[in-house]
Amino acid sequence: MAVGWFYLSFYALSLLGLMCVILTVYWMQLWHGGFAWDGTSRLMFNYHPVFMVAGSVVVYSAASLVYRLPQSWVGPKLPWKIGHAVLHLLAFILTVLGLVVVFQFHNHENTVSLYSLHSWLGIVTVFLFACQWFLGFVVFLLPWVSVWLRSLLKPIHVFFGAVILFLSVASVISGINEKLFFSLNNNTQPYSSLPSEAVFANSTGMLVVVFGLLVLYILLVSSWKRPEPGILSEGQVVRRRTVHPNPMWPDVGRTVTGLPEGMEPLKPLG
Amino acid sequence: MAVGWFYLSFYALSLLGLMCVILTVYWMQLWHGGFAWDGTSRLMFNYHPVFMVAGSVVVYSAASLVYRLPQSWVGPKLPWKIGHAVLHLLAFILTVLGLVVVFQFHNHENTVSLYSLHSWLGIVTVFLFACQWFLGFVVFLLPWVSVWLRSLLKPIHVFFGAVILFLSVASVISGINEKLFFSLNNNTQPYSSLPSEAVFANSTGMLVVVFGLLVLYILLVSSWKRPEPGILSEGQVVRRRTVHPNPMWPDVGRTVTGLPEGMEPLKPLG
Repeated sequence: MAVGWFYLSFYALSLLGLMCVILTVYWMQLWHGGFAWDGTSRLMFNYHPVFMVAGSVVVYSAASLVYRLPQSWVGPKLPWKIGHAVLHLLAFILTVLGLVVVFQFHNHENTVSLYSLHSWLGIVTVFLFACQWFLGFVVFLLPWVSVWLRSLLKPIHVFFGAVILFLSVASVISGINEKLFFSLNNNTQPYSSLPSEAVFANSTGMLVVVFGLLVLYILLVSSWKRPEPGILSEGQVVRRRTVHPNPMWPDVGRTVTGLPEGMEPLKPLG
Repeated sequence: MAVGWFYLSFYALSLLGLMCVILTVYWMQLWHGGFAWDGTSRLMFNYHPVFMVAGSVVVYSAASLVYRLPQSWVGPKLPWKIGHAVLHLLAFILTVLGLVVVFQFHNHENTVSLYSLHSWLGIVTVFLFACQWFLGFVVFLLPWVSVWLRSLLKPIHVFFGAVILFLSVASVISGINEKLFFSLNNNTQPYSSLPSEAVFANSTGMLVVVFGLLVLYILLVSSWKRPEPGILSEGQVVRRRTVHPNPMWPDVGRTVTGLPEGMEPLKPLG
């Protein structure tokens, strides 16, 4: 795959993720009066869709795809691991803030929380996300776990990473659907008459689905993976040749230093 | 992986899929008055969740997993291809019937169709399913497409297969959520008071999610794949040794006859 295609995909995906967040902000701003962190009003609730789309889908995806950047394939892995963990922590904090605003709003309104299928799915997703981050930190970042155990758990870690994204997208879709049935329930402009808000929010939901599927494709199917120690596929060798040398890792493409335990130096090219 | 584990997983998954369908039937039977194919009443609509869970999720999954049965790994591929196509056709017919009942019900009630995000996602999913079936039939079942083109398109076919299941599950979740907001909207027993119907249907939805994730795991991650021509992984050799000889394909494990074009005979074991 050509380098140009990689960077085109990279920027298109980033733009799509940004669009998902911006459209969600717009939806809450234009049709629901914007935002206020006052612990009481419905303006506090308006943060909920934004934090969930931004945290559990977009930043989560960015964090998941760290090892799909060719720059991460060679050189020391630790900085990329730390980046992966920090970005996921940011995604998790945003997601928890998304929960905080909805619980605060429900408490203030004396409404029950956690009754809809959307909320059941959402809370299970956040719980899995917490477990995944904690276990990922213990197994892959702290130094005392053996390379053998890490290799054994890596496919499970990657699979659950994809599962959590899948569940996040399903939660977002059911959440947007639910919110529209709540807010477009008057007789003059019901959801079924497809007013502008409905078209806008439905489209935002469809965009989140497209974004999630593209991320899952890159995560699970594409050849943009950090190669296993000492192995570069043909396509990856071509990319490595053309993408590097890299100003961040000037030693890349020549002699790789500071390899983590268990990783052998890459074979010289050509 | 032991043979016992494979069959345990196989039966557990079949049971789980059956449970998803039975619980959906029960939900419609116990809380919504059952079923009637009269083209008019809400009893016609009640087929919608059942056909969608059965067709687009459970039978679809069974059809997708045909090549994960060790019996399909050796011997002529054509009977398995036909089984795969026929089961997917059955899943598609059930899904289209699921659409027919909801459109008929909406027409009779003079309600608009295709306004909610659930319906947008659902109709896109059915459209992709139709394209996938048609292209799969043309490329992989009709005899005139080259082996080279088939190998090129196979990963795309598998990926879109997983995508459609992902979208089906997301559609089912948003659909159950929507249906519960419609039916539990009275003041004496709202959805938020979690009446028995809400607990029952929410649990059914969560079960559909668990089922879908297990199927995606087996489809994308597990080692239960028909090996590429001439290649059996270590685990697959062990399974093949112990699972076969197979009464359906008595030649399996000795000399494989009737191989499709491009497939080399498997290497003798041991």
